[in-house]
Amino acid sequence: MDVIVHGGAGSDPADPEGRASALEKAASRGADAASPVDAVVAAVRWLESTPQFNAGVGSAVQSDGTIRTDAGMMTGSGSAGAACSMPGVEHAIEVARVVMASTPHVLVSGEHAVDLAASFGIPTRVDLWTERTRERWAEVEPPMTGLEDQLAWVREHFGGHDTVGAVATDGERVATATSTGGRWFALAGRVGDVPQIGSGFYASEAGGASATGAGEDIARETLAREAVSHLEDGTDAQTAADRTIADFDVARTGDAGVIVMSVDGDAGSAYNSESMQVATE
Amino acid sequence: MDVIVHGGAGSDPADPEGRASALEKAASRGADAASPVDAVVAAVRWLESTPQFNAGVGSAVQSDGTIRTDAGMMTGSGSAGAACSMPGVEHAIEVARVVMASTPHVLVSGEHAVDLAASFGIPTRVDLWTERTRERWAEVEPPMTGLEDQLAWVREHFGGHDTVGAVATDGERVATATSTGGRWFALAGRVGDVPQIGSGFYASEAGGASATGAGEDIARETLAREAVSHLEDGTDAQTAADRTIADFDVARTGDAGVIVMSVDGDAGSAYNSESMQVATE
Repeated sequence: MDVIVHGGAGSDPADPEGRASALEKAASRGADAASPVDAVVAAVRWLESTPQFNAGVGSAVQSDGTIRTDAGMMTGSGSAGAACSMPGVEHAIEVARVVMASTPHVLVSGEHAVDLAASFGIPTRVDLWTERTRERWAEVEPPMTGLEDQLAWVREHFGGHDTVGAVATDGERVATATSTGGRWFALAGRVGDVPQIGSGFYASEAGGASATGAGEDIARETLAREAVSHLEDGTDAQTAADRTIADFDVARTGDAGVIVMSVDGDAGSAYNSESMQVATE
Repeated sequence: MDVIVHGGAGSDPADPEGRASALEKAASRGADAASPVDAVVAAVRWLESTPQFNAGVGSAVQSDGTIRTDAGMMTGSGSAGAACSMPGVEHAIEVARVVMASTPHVLVSGEHAVDLAASFGIPTRVDLWTERTRERWAEVEPPMTGLEDQLAWVREHFGGHDTVGAVATDGERVATATSTGGRWFALAGRVGDVPQIGSGFYASEAGGASATGAGEDIARETLAREAVSHLEDGTDAQTAADRTIADFDVARTGDAGVIVMSVDGDAGSAYNSESMQVATE
């Protein structure tokens, strides 16, 4: 199994420690899996449980002081599933897999997605706060003086990336997955690119892509779809990643990164942010 | 102002009555508006209040007996907003406009989107049931014997389209909007293509598109993005619509329709369903 994983665009790779080795372990877990779907879920699950990344444990906090997680996944044959706005769900990617495998839908939202998770034995009501999350949240005081003040506060403080993702192939089948705790201090209920098909994740028979960075700008560019379109045109994975980020950089002001893998295991990645950590197997 | 509107792919155009004239009125209201954004909102608002369409009043019902609405909109300059899973919101398109104009986000979900709507003076807790909706809901009995039975029931009964949408241009500026009550008997919390950028709606400087039909399949194809990509390649609007639906028809089994308008007002539409009613001004 060929696997590429990312740990998000934006952060200083030296802070916090342990990210590089966690990414290597995630890629290794993916490589040992029985299928591309199992591979991307295994890799992303590992990172969701690693508090240094903004997914699962260690996720960002929305404006109302609640952590909500999102994830999406897709296969080269067109199966897709995603889930969004879930409080207390560490393994958002498992819920995305349930939506893909067990419902006729591609996206389920909010408390209904949490109920769906619970029905399938996925743990809910999980405490996703870490010491680092508590310290960061304690540094700010969201205004409680009405929505107008809160929106101004959201605009000022909104940011932070470090979404995680993976793409895998066994030479015939492709799968991609992305998971996130959203962006810091987003308005409660905000959904970014991650659970939107074509924005945070996309796959076709040609290969797959997973995006990270400024979610709203990534969605406006349907970034993962663009990367896979380049693969469909016969472009190699690195050039596909480079072109996608170059086009993004012209069109938008935010940070973005993308990992790309073709069905035959050719891997590439690109970003316009300070850094984006990647591991391959 | 050039405007094209659609009333959804799938239904027999003769049943129920009054759809064609409502679409003409919607297009006419759009044509009289001061900007493309105002035009698509005015057209879609009109259809959201017309009970013959599956948006606003007359919307489909989810598996738990609740009507939830979704909408998305985008401009050629890259502003975008969407809202999903909103119980009791007739004018979902107004909430999408608030997300676009007044937040740093592109998608807000569930009760938080309803709260946002209320804060901006958009009516919530609206009764979206019609006599026709009550009759249809009364014909079925969703199982109350656990999620497995309910999912089997959803798979069996899930369907229905008639999402509404509009694209408008003043020759320089483009806007597109799509609004829906979802699909009949979808699992509670299900989100389809409509509020997902690139799937139910998309616009760039070249023009805009609005999609309708089997939402999950449309999302897998990022249908609206594909249509606008053809405009960006210099294709005329009718050919762009035809190619998008032809490609969709090869890749997926569901019904789909799309309306397309270039920035200079060239309009086109195509569908693979029994019918799709369109009006232009």
